[in-house]
Amino acid sequence: MNRSTLYSNLGIRLDMAVEAHDVIRREMGADVPGVRIFRTEHPQAVVTTVVVESEQGEQAMAKPRGTYVTIDAPPLRENNREAHQAISTILAHELRRLLQIGPNSSVLVVGLGNWNATPDALGPKVVESTLVTRHLHHFAPEELAGHLRPVSAIAPGVLGLTGIETAEIIKGIVEKTGPDLIIAIDALATRSVDRIATSIQLANTGIQPGSGVGNKRAGINLETMGCPVVALGIPTVVHAGIIAHEAIEKLMQQFQTSPTLYRLYKGINPEAMQQIIEEVLGPFQRDLIMTPKEIDQLIQQTSRVVSAGIAQALHPSIGPDQWTQYLQ
Amino acid sequence: MNRSTLYSNLGIRLDMAVEAHDVIRREMGADVPGVRIFRTEHPQAVVTTVVVESEQGEQAMAKPRGTYVTIDAPPLRENNREAHQAISTILAHELRRLLQIGPNSSVLVVGLGNWNATPDALGPKVVESTLVTRHLHHFAPEELAGHLRPVSAIAPGVLGLTGIETAEIIKGIVEKTGPDLIIAIDALATRSVDRIATSIQLANTGIQPGSGVGNKRAGINLETMGCPVVALGIPTVVHAGIIAHEAIEKLMQQFQTSPTLYRLYKGINPEAMQQIIEEVLGPFQRDLIMTPKEIDQLIQQTSRVVSAGIAQALHPSIGPDQWTQYLQ
Amino acid sequence: MNRSTLYSNLGIRLDMAVEAHDVIRREMGADVPGVRIFRTEHPQAVVTTVVVESEQGEQAMAKPRGTYVTIDAPPLRENNREAHQAISTILAHELRRLLQIGPNSSVLVVGLGNWNATPDALGPKVVESTLVTRHLHHFAPEELAGHLRPVSAIAPGVLGLTGIETAEIIKGIVEKTGPDLIIAIDALATRSVDRIATSIQLANTGIQPGSGVGNKRAGINLETMGCPVVALGIPTVVHAGIIAHEAIEKLMQQFQTSPTLYRLYKGINPEAMQQIIEEVLGPFQRDLIMTPKEIDQLIQQTSRVVSAGIAQALHPSIGPDQWTQYLQ
Amino acid sequence: MNRSTLYSNLGIRLDMAVEAHDVIRREMGADVPGVRIFRTEHPQAVVTTVVVESEQGEQAMAKPRGTYVTIDAPPLRENNREAHQAISTILAHELRRLLQIGPNSSVLVVGLGNWNATPDALGPKVVESTLVTRHLHHFAPEELAGHLRPVSAIAPGVLGLTGIETAEIIKGIVEKTGPDLIIAIDALATRSVDRIATSIQLANTGIQPGSGVGNKRAGINLETMGCPVVALGIPTVVHAGIIAHEAIEKLMQQFQTSPTLYRLYKGINPEAMQQIIEEVLGPFQRDLIMTPKEIDQLIQQTSRVVSAGIAQALHPSIGPDQWTQYLQ
Repeated sequence: MNRSTLYSNLGIRLDMAVEAHDVIRREMGADVPGVRIFRTEHPQAVVTTVVVESEQGEQAMAKPRGTYVTIDAPPLRENNREAHQAISTILAHELRRLLQIGPNSSVLVVGLGNWNATPDALGPKVVESTLVTRHLHHFAPEELAGHLRPVSAIAPGVLGLTGIETAEIIKGIVEKTGPDLIIAIDALATRSVDRIATSIQLANTGIQPGSGVGNKRAGINLETMGCPVVALGIPTVVHAGIIAHEAIEKLMQQFQTSPTLYRLYKGINPEAMQQIIEEVLGPFQRDLIMTPKEIDQLIQQTSRVVSAGIAQALHPSIGPDQWTQYLQ
Repeated sequence: MNRSTLYSNLGIRLDMAVEAHDVIRREMGADVPGVRIFRTEHPQAVVTTVVVESEQGEQAMAKPRGTYVTIDAPPLRENNREAHQAISTILAHELRRLLQIGPNSSVLVVGLGNWNATPDALGPKVVESTLVTRHLHHFAPEELAGHLRPVSAIAPGVLGLTGIETAEIIKGIVEKTGPDLIIAIDALATRSVDRIATSIQLANTGIQPGSGVGNKRAGINLETMGCPVVALGIPTVVHAGIIAHEAIEKLMQQFQTSPTLYRLYKGINPEAMQQIIEEVLGPFQRDLIMTPKEIDQLIQQTSRVVSAGIAQALHPSIGPDQWTQYLQ
Repeated sequence: MNRSTLYSNLGIRLDMAVEAHDVIRREMGADVPGVRIFRTEHPQAVVTTVVVESEQGEQAMAKPRGTYVTIDAPPLRENNREAHQAISTILAHELRRLLQIGPNSSVLVVGLGNWNATPDALGPKVVESTLVTRHLHHFAPEELAGHLRPVSAIAPGVLGLTGIETAEIIKGIVEKTGPDLIIAIDALATRSVDRIATSIQLANTGIQPGSGVGNKRAGINLETMGCPVVALGIPTVVHAGIIAHEAIEKLMQQFQTSPTLYRLYKGINPEAMQQIIEEVLGPFQRDLIMTPKEIDQLIQQTSRVVSAGIAQALHPSIGPDQWTQYLQ
Repeated sequence: MNRSTLYSNLGIRLDMAVEAHDVIRREMGADVPGVRIFRTEHPQAVVTTVVVESEQGEQAMAKPRGTYVTIDAPPLRENNREAHQAISTILAHELRRLLQIGPNSSVLVVGLGNWNATPDALGPKVVESTLVTRHLHHFAPEELAGHLRPVSAIAPGVLGLTGIETAEIIKGIVEKTGPDLIIAIDALATRSVDRIATSIQLANTGIQPGSGVGNKRAGINLETMGCPVVALGIPTVVHAGIIAHEAIEKLMQQFQTSPTLYRLYKGINPEAMQQIIEEVLGPFQRDLIMTPKEIDQLIQQTSRVVSAGIAQALHPSIGPDQWTQYLQ
């Protein structure tokens, strides 16, 4: 039974490139052609970079060509400021590698998602604590002169709140303010419970249609916006369908000793499997999500690390200690 | 494989008496002794009353003797004010049947749960919109004279926020203010996705230790408080472990045609099953919960229905239209 | 001593046309040329319409040509739903008179102001409870067919939060979505404590630069937006400087029996008066505002009346009872 | 005209001992008997200690015998973390001098005030970021062993929200949990605009009835609670009546050159003055408060400094850098 087909039938997207790569690699039983992958280790985090290099890679991964960086940092979930500072510095470093912008380039930070739905509120929370400087740019305090590039920030809300496609709102603002770069922050869905509030994904491809917890309908990327878009996401939920499927898979691993049984299981057609899972999910279907009880606190915590990382990346001449004085 | 043993090993409680009854009845294959059950139907809701009558019933159900009323009202989840008004009237009616208090008896409304964790915030939200009258009692506006009993309300928070057991805070307030009755509101865990934000459970037994989304450590009931406690709960989450288990069960129903296979499945010991599920749940374990994406809006909506129902039950001489003028 | 000069030296604007008219009329001791004014009385409200008709009127009033409607409704401040419903119906009626749009014209509701500063949060609060329909327009529920015009809504924040001029954000969205009309909601400053949370001002001239609690820097009106803009404001604050000045004026009225003294007072030059008041205001100056303690609740209450009034005006075929079923 | 009589007729209390002392000293034209006062200067703050020593002092000051410490720290109002850290260290130092408790004494932090009314929300905000340890006391992380005394925290709300006197709620909790000391945090009214969000007052006398922005009805002090109560307050509002009165006073200082006029002014009886001010205040009267536009941000900022100061005072073995790792 093909996992990617099943997920797609259930309306489940794999937002994280590193997870999509794992699933495909396992199904293929070989390296995915057109995709390069490499890892770096830090005391607090492992950084995995997936580069989709060719059309072949794009098709296999169902993701556009580009660089996808995943920072897996388990201490992000703990209430430990020292670790958080280290992670935000790693984030700043990886961001700067992807951004490739001049010292005075202007940046628009976009916080995607619904501020009324906690697991989808990461983006708006980051915007809330972003160091906004665009309007100060000409009369910044003397001690900061030369340090601060022009940064603006907006949380455009979601279709159900505004009646307007998120991408339309952003495009309108981009046309009026002409930023050199967009950083778009979004909550993601993961297939691994372990990644909730511990991983950060960066991608220089922007946001694709249908991705994120709130399922964006239109893309926010170079094509649609006219300037480069770096996407920054943190997984906050697992689709309930994945948990249901994982449980079945784990059970079957127990049965592998019985070849008859295992064959029987492998013979279940995807439609039957899909139907089993849909019955379990009940009336909410793909809107039934799995999230830790303390998600409110995790969003609070991770949004602080993200805005700290962005501030360090965008204003490199302010030291990590110093900028906290200017942040909320 | 015994479901109640498995649940208990996984640390999953069945907060709803009607669900505990279902599970036990299925396991016994017969009526549960010492438990009576009956249903009433309304256009917008089905009301099921479970009465635990004897020690035998208490042991089977793992719930104390008393009356447990479940209002299953699917339109509670929809954004339909007319239906909500009908449901709050049914709620008021059932509450009044359980309360059995005089017209001037004083009532303390307690909103249990953590206001920072959306699916656990039902109780605090209800308190927020409760019509508080205790302090006005002697100088109420003329048009209300004779209508309003003394009502006070408190959301005591949770242990992690205050450092104090919730039951201690409430007991302290009860000793100072001497209410004749407590209504304790709490978010519940359910085993059925269909019940999320559609069912209301009332119980004249109060709150037992370990129940609710936030797992109360001490009971809030007649024994601990010295006055009757009516518990009012709405399910807002399903433990992720239940979804995992349901998926496995549903798969096995598919296999029932193969007696060998089904026997094999039935032979899995509870420890193995527990281990499979724990692996799926990952680091959060019993704190991994399943909840609909729009839980924030559902809590908003249901808390309004609950506070409207309580207002009608406690102040019967105010008409359903009239009281909205005095509520926020 | 000229009051309008003093106000302008202190940086105090009169947001309400009816108040500007009062001040000028008193100073002139005669009718203001180029301005017409008339009143209608309702049981719950008095409606005053000020029409600025000519350039002469514009200069005297320091307000552009157009119609300014003030609904003075003292029960708006009370917690009385019946009165609120009556006021929202009057509001709907006056709005419809000003709007002059076809049944299918699309409307963008803009909530100006800072959601983090309570007295400035009226606009964002109204947006929160606006019935947004633009995205539903093609697949509305059958019972609403033909009823709902396309409505979108946005709270663009303030310069300090986004780094972007509010008018730029709105203009960008207008260019993308092409509404036929904008309704812009804003909190206002008044010179009369009695008007706080009791008056509603409508103006078919849009928002002028420098007006509102948060002092908009650019106008939001037909010229800047390319479509008609109706402004809807409710006073939530009095500048502290006005209170200081009123106290002095009231004292002097006591002294009118002594002609010497009164002459002395009238002889104080505006600079001296301005300096007295600035000393009283201390470090905050024009950012020191007077507001009732319960402003949070008043904003909550009045924003509900406003969104109800807008809903009735925009969707006339939905009855006043019916629409509450579709509103939050 | 006697200022203290006027204030008392207008229902205005002077919450700050240092201000009460100023007013009385000016009226007496001499040192206040039974009251000692002394100052210490720091780079970021001036600390003034007022000691009310005798019954004579109590009567003059209308405040009970005890020590009142005012930290006047203008940078508290600025968004400057370094200065905030310095101020919280001064606060911790002054608190420790007043507390006089053993290393293991337990402390209950009480956040007074209404969380729905921004200028009154200081106390609840401090509670939100208080390091609560009472429940962890027996199983604290190893690295903290021996560092953390048992601390609990509660925001009891206000009479209008709960229907219960604040003092009753606290007393109930005190009887159940037996703390050795209470620290009660409250927003204060000041007569000086300069003190808003820049001063911190500590008092070992607890909270007196009628004080604070929300006018507590019953005292929270050694007599009512049975354990010492240290009050910690920050001024967030000026009563509008004071601004009106100050304006009149400032005007009259201009007139001092004319003895006739000044005599006339001095001859106004308090009732007439009171009436003038009441007319200016309009319908809200003593509920009309003056507060800076950015009060929401000031409450956020000052509450963080206060909870940091309390944490340092209560857990002295945790360094100022270290504790931020354990705080939200």
